[in-house]
Amino acid sequence: FQVDHFGFLEDDTFKQRYLVADKHWQQPGGPVLFYTGNEGDITWFCNNTGFMWEVAEELGAMLVFAEHRYYGESLPFGQDSYSDSKHLNYLTAEQALADFAVLIQNLKNTLPGAQQSPVIAVGGSYGGMLAAWFRMKYPNVVAGALAASAPIWQFPGMVPCGDFYKIVTQDFARSGYNCDANIRKSWKAINNVSSTVSGLQWLSEEFSLCAPLKTIIDVIGFKNWLQETWVNLAMVDYPYEANFLQPLPRWPIQVVCKNLAFDSNVSDYQLLHGVSQAAKVYYNYTGSSSCLNTSQTATGSLGALGWTYQACTEMVMPMCTDGVQDMFEPEDWNFQAFSDECKAMFGVRPRADWAGTVFGGKEIASHSNIIFSNGGLDPWSAGGVTHNITDSLISIMIPDGAHHLDLRYSNDLDPPSVRAARALEVKYFSRFYSHGCGYSCL
Amino acid sequence: FQVDHFGFLEDDTFKQRYLVADKHWQQPGGPVLFYTGNEGDITWFCNNTGFMWEVAEELGAMLVFAEHRYYGESLPFGQDSYSDSKHLNYLTAEQALADFAVLIQNLKNTLPGAQQSPVIAVGGSYGGMLAAWFRMKYPNVVAGALAASAPIWQFPGMVPCGDFYKIVTQDFARSGYNCDANIRKSWKAINNVSSTVSGLQWLSEEFSLCAPLKTIIDVIGFKNWLQETWVNLAMVDYPYEANFLQPLPRWPIQVVCKNLAFDSNVSDYQLLHGVSQAAKVYYNYTGSSSCLNTSQTATGSLGALGWTYQACTEMVMPMCTDGVQDMFEPEDWNFQAFSDECKAMFGVRPRADWAGTVFGGKEIASHSNIIFSNGGLDPWSAGGVTHNITDSLISIMIPDGAHHLDLRYSNDLDPPSVRAARALEVKYFSRFYSHGCGYSCL
Repeated sequence: FQVDHFGFLEDDTFKQRYLVADKHWQQPGGPVLFYTGNEGDITWFCNNTGFMWEVAEELGAMLVFAEHRYYGESLPFGQDSYSDSKHLNYLTAEQALADFAVLIQNLKNTLPGAQQSPVIAVGGSYGGMLAAWFRMKYPNVVAGALAASAPIWQFPGMVPCGDFYKIVTQDFARSGYNCDANIRKSWKAINNVSSTVSGLQWLSEEFSLCAPLKTIIDVIGFKNWLQETWVNLAMVDYPYEANFLQPLPRWPIQVVCKNLAFDSNVSDYQLLHGVSQAAKVYYNYTGSSSCLNTSQTATGSLGALGWTYQACTEMVMPMCTDGVQDMFEPEDWNFQAFSDECKAMFGVRPRADWAGTVFGGKEIASHSNIIFSNGGLDPWSAGGVTHNITDSLISIMIPDGAHHLDLRYSNDLDPPSVRAARALEVKYFSRFYSHGCGYSCL
Repeated sequence: FQVDHFGFLEDDTFKQRYLVADKHWQQPGGPVLFYTGNEGDITWFCNNTGFMWEVAEELGAMLVFAEHRYYGESLPFGQDSYSDSKHLNYLTAEQALADFAVLIQNLKNTLPGAQQSPVIAVGGSYGGMLAAWFRMKYPNVVAGALAASAPIWQFPGMVPCGDFYKIVTQDFARSGYNCDANIRKSWKAINNVSSTVSGLQWLSEEFSLCAPLKTIIDVIGFKNWLQETWVNLAMVDYPYEANFLQPLPRWPIQVVCKNLAFDSNVSDYQLLHGVSQAAKVYYNYTGSSSCLNTSQTATGSLGALGWTYQACTEMVMPMCTDGVQDMFEPEDWNFQAFSDECKAMFGVRPRADWAGTVFGGKEIASHSNIIFSNGGLDPWSAGGVTHNITDSLISIMIPDGAHHLDLRYSNDLDPPSVRAARALEVKYFSRFYSHGCGYSCL
């Protein structure tokens, strides 16, 4: 594939990885479910998108999982891909969408029986944004899209910056007595305890940190890591034991909150002991971690550096907290500071308004054939499309669902809302390509 | 404006020129007619798009004419913009569309009263293609588009490569006795006459060439120049005296053909005398040319080098002739030879299938609010949308029209078909933005 679809100077090509499963494909002409890979190894998304595997037979569909450039093994410049901003320059959503479009056109031209196959894009999270944008930008290539837990409106000026953390907080508030209140109190407790050398040492031991806290900078990093931990828990608050970002029990936030059900007279040390037990639910559910590493919060299958670069360029997602409607330390959204960090880290500055211009912002009503599914427990639903826009831009809410629960393998413990969502999604799939007017219109 | 909208390494900016006329604008909220500039100086397009000026008052519209990057004064790297393939790398339709989108968002954010103004894109020829693609890719930014004489299907695999020259030939066939037949015979006559040194000299004198023909290469160039002359005449066969590519009489092909009305027994020298008189109708209507320059066929306001680069990258438009259904020497479409020429000239190779993938090819039915107008006399109608696709992707045919006649100032000699076309276009404009559902849907 072209490293640069939008310029002709750089004529280098690279190998994009994609996985194909055609066991149930009814050729010729059976549909293709095309996973628009996001920021990680495609085999990991492939294994965590059981929904596609489960509906392949019913639809007679071929499955294709396409890896996003710069992640997994799809490195445009091999080991040098992340070496500097020059090599990172082709890491954009537009280039990734162009990769997907060219891949599909190639498959159609080379796979016998695929020429007339309608293609449905499927993705979750950033992959869901890509699925939605893919249909918007290349309706000639895909007949429709399922954008699961896709925060396409988490961009400047589109939704309040505090909604994301409000939802995280609500998840904790509903999952145990005083759970959000005690997390809200914990930041002050950390500040208090960490103000002495012995307190720092106590904290490091209590949390079994691999690298003991030494400075105020370490403490800030520690609090950020804890905040991210609560966010991740909100994302993966699934109704059954699962291993997405980490191996976790069913309804993990309820388990976490059992350690935080203190009354208001708890001491800082007691409170933080509870917090450490809570954090270990997330980091050491299997009991195999000898210490906790505050530089990592989730699976290594995700490409954190690449995503940071994308956030520093196009994917500018304002977030803020006020400590009142959410359980975090108050922090405004400060674009200038963010931009300066990006400049220091990668030598690039984000373009705050670009995503809204190029991907439509809130003005997407003229598009068609996109399902936006959202979980009520998922903080990313704050930036999602949670109401129907037209009769072919559909929102499906899953009140008991966390981050793209609908894309996961079905489970006996699935709530009825996600079962209904999946059934509806499949119904829309066939509607997207069975209108007798070719696969490009509703 | 960003030199590179699709990468963040190149953070240079450049000044894009645009012209604004708000005399008739009914602010706040009056519509904006936005000319998507094509391959030339924007002031020239501005002066040749009288239609916009004439309907501004009726619509209470503001007019904006935006210059396309790399043309006129909108040079991303100043005098170096054309120096090599590195500097030319940002000359693409995608970058130009992004310029237009960002320009409109900026105008809306800064011009009092423009925030809620619906925007209609208007363009002719390549500018018409841009107008259509602009609506397809940025429906959040423009409510609709008028794509006049826009050959969006003149790409590989979409229309027969010979149709373009067939239409040119039909124009000559209908404009005078034996006119196409004698042009068809002229190529052989040129070959015969140019086979001797004295014949070459006679030809050079007969055609008043600034640079006499000396070699067989010169003769090939001479024939190409003549062929392009007939094409240009077909494009500007307007029903009144006009100066678009050249100053010309009304119905110039009829005037040309008066010099070519020979019977079949004409000698090569007689025939070529007629051809030279015919060519001089195009090149010397005003009588001010002392000699004819075979290296130029049209106004210097068009950026020929930039367009050649665009044709050598994205804008791959197959053309062919067979000498039977058209009046030209037979020539197949040879992509490989074309690609090799591009590589030699610019160091880039064209991507034959990219335009079809990125701009939708023939699968555009899911888009909306685009008027495709085509002139029956215009060879570019071969690659145009000449039938309605949906009730908001409208084709308007102007049988007596040449290249985007509808965009020109009205004239007493305008045929009824172009008057009707303009009236219909204005009707659709207001329909595009008055549906009460915002400006993004039909």
